[in-house]
Amino acid sequence: MISIILLGAGKVAKHLFDALYKSNDISVIQWFNRDIKKIESFKNDIGITDEIDSLAKADIYIICVSDDAISKISKKLPFTGRLVVHTSGSINIHDLDKKNRRGVFYPLQTFSNSRQINFEEIPLCLEALEKEDLKLLRSLAKHIGCKSYKINTEQRQTLHLSAVFVNNFVNQMYRIGHEISDAKKINFDILKPLLIETANKLNEMSPYQAQTGPAVRNDQKTIKKHLKMLEKKEHKHIYQVMTKSIEKTHGR
Amino acid sequence: MISIILLGAGKVAKHLFDALYKSNDISVIQWFNRDIKKIESFKNDIGITDEIDSLAKADIYIICVSDDAISKISKKLPFTGRLVVHTSGSINIHDLDKKNRRGVFYPLQTFSNSRQINFEEIPLCLEALEKEDLKLLRSLAKHIGCKSYKINTEQRQTLHLSAVFVNNFVNQMYRIGHEISDAKKINFDILKPLLIETANKLNEMSPYQAQTGPAVRNDQKTIKKHLKMLEKKEHKHIYQVMTKSIEKTHGR
Repeated sequence: MISIILLGAGKVAKHLFDALYKSNDISVIQWFNRDIKKIESFKNDIGITDEIDSLAKADIYIICVSDDAISKISKKLPFTGRLVVHTSGSINIHDLDKKNRRGVFYPLQTFSNSRQINFEEIPLCLEALEKEDLKLLRSLAKHIGCKSYKINTEQRQTLHLSAVFVNNFVNQMYRIGHEISDAKKINFDILKPLLIETANKLNEMSPYQAQTGPAVRNDQKTIKKHLKMLEKKEHKHIYQVMTKSIEKTHGR
Repeated sequence: MISIILLGAGKVAKHLFDALYKSNDISVIQWFNRDIKKIESFKNDIGITDEIDSLAKADIYIICVSDDAISKISKKLPFTGRLVVHTSGSINIHDLDKKNRRGVFYPLQTFSNSRQINFEEIPLCLEALEKEDLKLLRSLAKHIGCKSYKINTEQRQTLHLSAVFVNNFVNQMYRIGHEISDAKKINFDILKPLLIETANKLNEMSPYQAQTGPAVRNDQKTIKKHLKMLEKKEHKHIYQVMTKSIEKTHGR
């Protein structure tokens, strides 16, 4: 049985709590948040507290707070020599106070409050300074059913950066597609099977192999027509920048 | 029973043939292609030909050739007054020769030769000049199990343009994410659950609601850090353009 104390109550903390709580091999013994109201609804399931000095003893302390607050809260912990991990994609493992054993437990996924997520499908990026601690984090990941990867800080920061492209920027492309089709009173649902297939295709081929469309075909006639159709200057610019990028990738 | 003759042998034609051939209410009676070698392997299933003058009689002629060749092939058809449709996202219905009844049967999806597709999940965008012809196209769509939408030429061209954003440009974002992570010897598989969830999220919310990440949070510290990490000038530029676009969308 691995005992856990959770610190913070944002989206990641809540999804992580659900996953940890379900496992028979994990005991979440306490949940800390500065603003206790945010975790009050859990008080029948678990010990809750807003006083950092009243933290109990546990195998792993998981810090799920905003990036800016991680270092600060790690300094305030009223104990030493225990395993303390953060869950951030961009914060260095050394930003945790060195009075404790340090690690990272980073779930690479996008979380919304309103959307249920199957935690088992989330890859966990693990880092620890001690071999034994990495082993403990691996077994924690295994107990909640996740695949885990040993990822150092530089790699994790790179993953976080890549995630901005494959998640945030991709989502903005969806947004632009939505805007363009909305303007002509077209139901955005028509585009959904396409965008889901675009993602699923990568289970069988690389993004390089998967590329289709006017830019990779060097179909200048269609490109010109599209640029003429785009009403917003901003959309035109993005069309040009992305077309150029595809052309460059494919040696056009 | 609806009788069909297929013209052309590209990716769309092949996927469409599979879907049509499976239906009990559709009879594909002939397949034409200028280069007969490309359809020779089907000669036991169906009449094949490379002579346009030997086309049989059918309810619907489906032209699945490259955009540039659609108008030309429609002119060469050795009959008049029959229903002829093309399958292109960008070609005007009026580009078909008016000696026949005209329509469009546009499957909005991305096709690869190597990947099996569940045709039933593809939205079909239908257009016809005559009401009766639209009805026939609707029942054709229904017989292969597809949802269909009445979409005029301007809307279809807008959908095709939107598709460039939600498919081609999205895929190029995947490509960049792949490049960046590859450079640090990170397995791209780690990013796949994220990008699949990014697409699936849209089943529950709009792209506007789904946005997360540094740009929408106005997290200038992370944006600065990411720009510093990006080694290629082109990637930096795309990061800046997309960040600005997200900021604009969300009124930052």
